[in-house]
Amino acid sequence: MLPAESRAPMPHLAIDIGGSLIKLVYYSRNGDWLPEDNKIWSSKESLGVSNGEGNHPLSEGRLHFAKFETSKINDCIEFIRSKQLHVGGQHHEVPSKNKIIIKATGGGAFKFTDLFKEKLGIVLDKEDEMDCLVAGANFLLKAVQREAFFYMDGQKQFVQIDHKDLYPYLLVNIGSGVSMIKVDGDGKFERVSGTSVGGGTFWGLGRLLTKCQSFDELLELSHVGNNRVIDMLVGDIYGGTDYAKIGLSSTNIASSFGKAISVDKELEDYQPEDISRSLLRMISNNIGQIAYLNALRYGLKRIFFGGFFIRGHAYTMDTISVAVHYWSKGEAQAMFLRHEGFLGALGAFASYERHGFDDLTAHQLAQLCPRRESCSEGTLHSAPHCDVIKEKKTL
Amino acid sequence: MLPAESRAPMPHLAIDIGGSLIKLVYYSRNGDWLPEDNKIWSSKESLGVSNGEGNHPLSEGRLHFAKFETSKINDCIEFIRSKQLHVGGQHHEVPSKNKIIIKATGGGAFKFTDLFKEKLGIVLDKEDEMDCLVAGANFLLKAVQREAFFYMDGQKQFVQIDHKDLYPYLLVNIGSGVSMIKVDGDGKFERVSGTSVGGGTFWGLGRLLTKCQSFDELLELSHVGNNRVIDMLVGDIYGGTDYAKIGLSSTNIASSFGKAISVDKELEDYQPEDISRSLLRMISNNIGQIAYLNALRYGLKRIFFGGFFIRGHAYTMDTISVAVHYWSKGEAQAMFLRHEGFLGALGAFASYERHGFDDLTAHQLAQLCPRRESCSEGTLHSAPHCDVIKEKKTL
Repeated sequence: MLPAESRAPMPHLAIDIGGSLIKLVYYSRNGDWLPEDNKIWSSKESLGVSNGEGNHPLSEGRLHFAKFETSKINDCIEFIRSKQLHVGGQHHEVPSKNKIIIKATGGGAFKFTDLFKEKLGIVLDKEDEMDCLVAGANFLLKAVQREAFFYMDGQKQFVQIDHKDLYPYLLVNIGSGVSMIKVDGDGKFERVSGTSVGGGTFWGLGRLLTKCQSFDELLELSHVGNNRVIDMLVGDIYGGTDYAKIGLSSTNIASSFGKAISVDKELEDYQPEDISRSLLRMISNNIGQIAYLNALRYGLKRIFFGGFFIRGHAYTMDTISVAVHYWSKGEAQAMFLRHEGFLGALGAFASYERHGFDDLTAHQLAQLCPRRESCSEGTLHSAPHCDVIKEKKTL
Repeated sequence: MLPAESRAPMPHLAIDIGGSLIKLVYYSRNGDWLPEDNKIWSSKESLGVSNGEGNHPLSEGRLHFAKFETSKINDCIEFIRSKQLHVGGQHHEVPSKNKIIIKATGGGAFKFTDLFKEKLGIVLDKEDEMDCLVAGANFLLKAVQREAFFYMDGQKQFVQIDHKDLYPYLLVNIGSGVSMIKVDGDGKFERVSGTSVGGGTFWGLGRLLTKCQSFDELLELSHVGNNRVIDMLVGDIYGGTDYAKIGLSSTNIASSFGKAISVDKELEDYQPEDISRSLLRMISNNIGQIAYLNALRYGLKRIFFGGFFIRGHAYTMDTISVAVHYWSKGEAQAMFLRHEGFLGALGAFASYERHGFDDLTAHQLAQLCPRRESCSEGTLHSAPHCDVIKEKKTL
């Protein structure tokens, strides 16, 4: 962390640079909209922020969210430049005289320090990745209504968390890899586990096995796939019957991709949608299982799943929910976060000392999501509802 | 289980039919060698059995082990026919007058009942799969010297288990899928967990991703592969540095197959050996992690890994050992079994009531492995040392 005196007075931007994706959170005051090139980026909606104090730096405004692939970091830099997010909140500030500091987290904050300095003349002030994930999750869980929800049988069921009964919980952040963090309070946490089988595995293996051109295309394909074509089910081994004695039904997956051992079929004989579904189920189920075992180990009743792997995707959430339900014999339930992919970036944003984030009470932030009613419809979105700005693929 | 009166008097054969492999255990008395077609099957060595009682059915003899791919079940049936294993231990017995019963376990014992009846005229007497795995493991751990070993840094370290201090332990059987069984005594156990990410996943995904023609070829390839080409390491995200604060070194895998998200490379640009190694490490590490979490959950000090996935393969055992060590922070160690792949088949064999297996005391069976000295050399074999008969691939 850099000395306080070197910081820019009002932040517009925080950035989380992961192994696969860069996530941005940036702020604009009402009537303080920044230059935008709508030919390049299409804004959806944003997250309204009001703390009810007129003299506060945040005043009334909006938080915006954007993501880019880490491999296309130059697009991200161009986006920041085009919106002038890098010159800080005080636009009269002269970068050449006053060093511009941007809060950044994720491994890429270290890896790309020189690139940001060179291209934008800004200094990335590195915040610890786990600190930011936890701060982001705590902020959302305490401040945003209808943030956390259960997902079962295609339905979201929002849960209002009692702030006094929030801790401890297990935070499972599914990025390229997976971190599992026991959270005991504000800034009180321990990374207790993780797995390398995460979003990067889904997209990496998925790319090799299908001709999909993007993570989202692969995810979409899984909607119409049938994993039974590739997975070896209990019934495939037992001739169609259950193995009831140990509680395995004939439709349980005995071996993920186990049918692909057949010498009669090669890769091109399988449908990409079936591969995608099998892969998604394998990974989601595995994460759900390891998460539950860790929650059990530490006596944690609540498990919140976040990270950009999920993307509000029905089958992913369904599989994770079923896995937690199955392995816990119904004693635990998975919960999800609407702003799942931006925990780290929000945490980095919250780490600015003078933005007033900490002063926003739960009550004041109850109105935070301007479209909270529409968020309760239980409809599915492949990204958080309130706000994503997508980069244009053809850029 | 069939009524006692219908059983053949002396068994030669028990069979374990899994999702990918069929495992046979059969017995021959000394001087009682069965017809063999060496052009088709090459016998290596066998496991000598002596219970020291001249009048006992087992008397002095050998246990033999063989495996076939389940998809080539007709080869297995032909093998049984050629050795006349299906006519039972009393060769004067006339199959048409006395029904021949063979002990069988695994899901295929249900699936292929009719096929065995039709082709060999034998009845498969089905034994529960978990019962057999546990019986086989208990038998080996109690009766066979130098059966269990640790594996670290390329070295085997055999462990003599105190029979009085054997229970409880966790048995992890890695077949097509993985079963995790808490064993509390003879016939006292519970299948507490498992994962669908097992040997079938390695071979299934491996077949789709490489041009390998067999599981063993894929496994061999992994020897010379480099998983860092495909896996995303912590250092890849953090620009070459560790994430020391949470104990992750730059060489830890952050995301299995995470580098394959790169749009610059397609499947054919990756080397099969690198894919194989990454896959093997992902699966072995995952199994080690889930196994440890379950051992912890039930307070089990010992974890034995068996199943045909392992095949005495150095890198597999090394990865599982490192995973258990890593996740337990050095408090637990993985152990392996020399006859890893035949637990179920041995258990099925042991379930014959009149073969005398149960009477073989640990002391009497201390001499069971005729080449136990050579087994201590620490050399690596891709199959259990003492015994495997392989089917000829060109059959």
